[in-house]
Amino acid sequence: MPKDFKEKDERNESKAAHEIRRIEGGVTAPVGFLAAGVHCGIKAGVSRKKDDLALIVSEPPCTAAATFTTNRVKAAPVKVSQEHLRTGSVSAILANSGNANACTGIDGIRHAQRMAEVAGAHLGIKPRGVMVCSTGRIGVPLPIAVVEEGIPRVVQRLSRGGSRQAAKAIMTSDTKVKEVAVEIEIEGRPVRIGGIAKGAGMIDPNMATMLAFFTTDAAVDKRDLRKALGDAVETSFNRITVDGDMSTNDTAILLANGRSGTSPLKNGEPGLELFRRALAYVALVLAKMIVKDGECASRYVELTVQGAKTFQDARKAARAVANSILVKCAIHGADPNWGRILDALGYSSARIREEMIDVYFNGQVAVKNGVASGMPKERLAHALKRRKSTILVDLHLGEAAYTIYTTDLSPGFVKYNMSE
Amino acid sequence: MPKDFKEKDERNESKAAHEIRRIEGGVTAPVGFLAAGVHCGIKAGVSRKKDDLALIVSEPPCTAAATFTTNRVKAAPVKVSQEHLRTGSVSAILANSGNANACTGIDGIRHAQRMAEVAGAHLGIKPRGVMVCSTGRIGVPLPIAVVEEGIPRVVQRLSRGGSRQAAKAIMTSDTKVKEVAVEIEIEGRPVRIGGIAKGAGMIDPNMATMLAFFTTDAAVDKRDLRKALGDAVETSFNRITVDGDMSTNDTAILLANGRSGTSPLKNGEPGLELFRRALAYVALVLAKMIVKDGECASRYVELTVQGAKTFQDARKAARAVANSILVKCAIHGADPNWGRILDALGYSSARIREEMIDVYFNGQVAVKNGVASGMPKERLAHALKRRKSTILVDLHLGEAAYTIYTTDLSPGFVKYNMSE
Repeated sequence: MPKDFKEKDERNESKAAHEIRRIEGGVTAPVGFLAAGVHCGIKAGVSRKKDDLALIVSEPPCTAAATFTTNRVKAAPVKVSQEHLRTGSVSAILANSGNANACTGIDGIRHAQRMAEVAGAHLGIKPRGVMVCSTGRIGVPLPIAVVEEGIPRVVQRLSRGGSRQAAKAIMTSDTKVKEVAVEIEIEGRPVRIGGIAKGAGMIDPNMATMLAFFTTDAAVDKRDLRKALGDAVETSFNRITVDGDMSTNDTAILLANGRSGTSPLKNGEPGLELFRRALAYVALVLAKMIVKDGECASRYVELTVQGAKTFQDARKAARAVANSILVKCAIHGADPNWGRILDALGYSSARIREEMIDVYFNGQVAVKNGVASGMPKERLAHALKRRKSTILVDLHLGEAAYTIYTTDLSPGFVKYNMSE
Repeated sequence: MPKDFKEKDERNESKAAHEIRRIEGGVTAPVGFLAAGVHCGIKAGVSRKKDDLALIVSEPPCTAAATFTTNRVKAAPVKVSQEHLRTGSVSAILANSGNANACTGIDGIRHAQRMAEVAGAHLGIKPRGVMVCSTGRIGVPLPIAVVEEGIPRVVQRLSRGGSRQAAKAIMTSDTKVKEVAVEIEIEGRPVRIGGIAKGAGMIDPNMATMLAFFTTDAAVDKRDLRKALGDAVETSFNRITVDGDMSTNDTAILLANGRSGTSPLKNGEPGLELFRRALAYVALVLAKMIVKDGECASRYVELTVQGAKTFQDARKAARAVANSILVKCAIHGADPNWGRILDALGYSSARIREEMIDVYFNGQVAVKNGVASGMPKERLAHALKRRKSTILVDLHLGEAAYTIYTTDLSPGFVKYNMSE
């Protein structure tokens, strides 16, 4: 096992651990944020009374940053939220599950706008101060009357302890609530960052079918906030893959209300640096929760490609391996079938030299210089039987590395996705 | 259903039908070709006595053309055959199943060379006159002693009726023998083209885990032969996808021995045109056999993207949809989940305009102008319950079209590929 396996992320993670303290409270941990979730019945034919409408509100309006799906087919709420983001400060995020409001034409846009209008009216703010998000089935008209009926109820329920309710209300095929919060110290004052997310299906780098909402009471200007969020997303949500499909609705939003009372965090100063690390940590924790909760996934894999000539090569190689259906099937069966890994590297379009490649499963060398290492198959298979594994590919061509977080592919996944 | 659905391939196919007659005999249908298959026991631990060594020989040496995998990880026999092809005429193809001789280092190269040497010695030709191919598990040393022992026996068995035996001997996870032959008339003389193939796993465009051997008694010069094969592969084997993985061993070889007695087919003359069409037909028949025999596939889909701005756009769009795990799961369940198709189009990097897209399942309109057509879901689902379906995507942005042949993804596929 090469010494330099510890990836940059991980080093940052452990370094950050001293200064970044986990706390309770999710998106309502930062001062000034309220949240709630209620049941509207958005997804027709579901008997179980699952909450499906979530609201997060900040008492002073926030500086906001967001990243959206790069899919050319964008859901209506993505288009509407992109517009709202452009026009200044944001006070609230309203999100529904059970319907993606995607591929729904002009009516879809009207419905997304209507969500912001009604929420704005009940909160006493302009519609443009509300970001809207949807997740669920594509191509089905959003039952807007049902949502409109739910909005006053979710406003009523807003509370300082509502984060978990909101996190539950955005879940679709998720089986676990995804919520985290941390506290850091800047200028002797506590500054908090909270986050909730949903994922599970249609998960692939470049923003999966994924909603992630971050709140903070830090004071950060828009440009720095945008950069901090972009970097955090790049090393977390853009590095997870479950099924290789990228959704129409992916959205990450970060609201900063400045209520911690510090002076605005400045570029190049340690306060902003610490904030950025803490945000990246929160995002990575949520991203790993998403991939571990992948639809019917039974194994979780951290796959690192190192020794690549460039970052692009490392990324292409890692993505090809992580998205290979055959590799995913082998992981499910704990089969140390490294031939499929070399095959995927070969078609990845990353620069490789077959005779330089080493592959390790959980630290056990399977491939040395492009051929079988001689390690007994039983021992490699045993290493892969864990619920959580690492696969390390060393290309020995350069210094670039890339880590991606992925899962196996199970027969259950196929059964689950055969119909909706 | 738009009138222009009939894709170019299909029009050519039906036009060709008048002049291209299916005959028996596979690769030994053309005059001057012999073939055989025998059992050596290459794959250890397999009790069933499956044939695993195939040989095809032409009595006069042939003009040869070949296309190989574009995977950067190339099996040893691919490297050796590429070299042999460069140096002139070819008399024989020797192929084994049960072991891919890939990721096997210098020893692998020696073993592939040894296959050609031993076969050449027994056939009385130079080693360079023998193309060698392997298919099976990656990364396991080829048991060369076993292969060497089998070579004299497969030479002994060579016969005018041996095509089917050879086709059986190259099968791996295939469940059906893939063999076809046609006859055309040029200058009043019969000219024959035969082919055998294997496929089933690691099938993706740009040459799948796929071996295809073509023989013909036509007289064609090397340049024209190469172009004819390249075009035939492009519209057949490069358009099939089962699991999205491209193998290390893919090879298509075409041998032409000129025994039909016609004058050499000349560029721009109708004889060569007809030959090219017949070869493309043979390749497409074999390619469809491969995809229909996809590992544990229960449904076969012809997916066409038309109305694309460019050929590249059409191809990117078609490949993204055909390789989407979620689309494949929906096809398995006969779920008319067109949202996943639009989602895949959106991330394909093809130019699209969401509000222009139409989608048809077996001629039933599911999506019109980017939104649900209103066709009842039951009717769409019913259309998809067939063993063979068509999906048509019309982007309405241009004239380019691309058809790809694909399958569903079944829980059985995952189980089959969990371990080897």
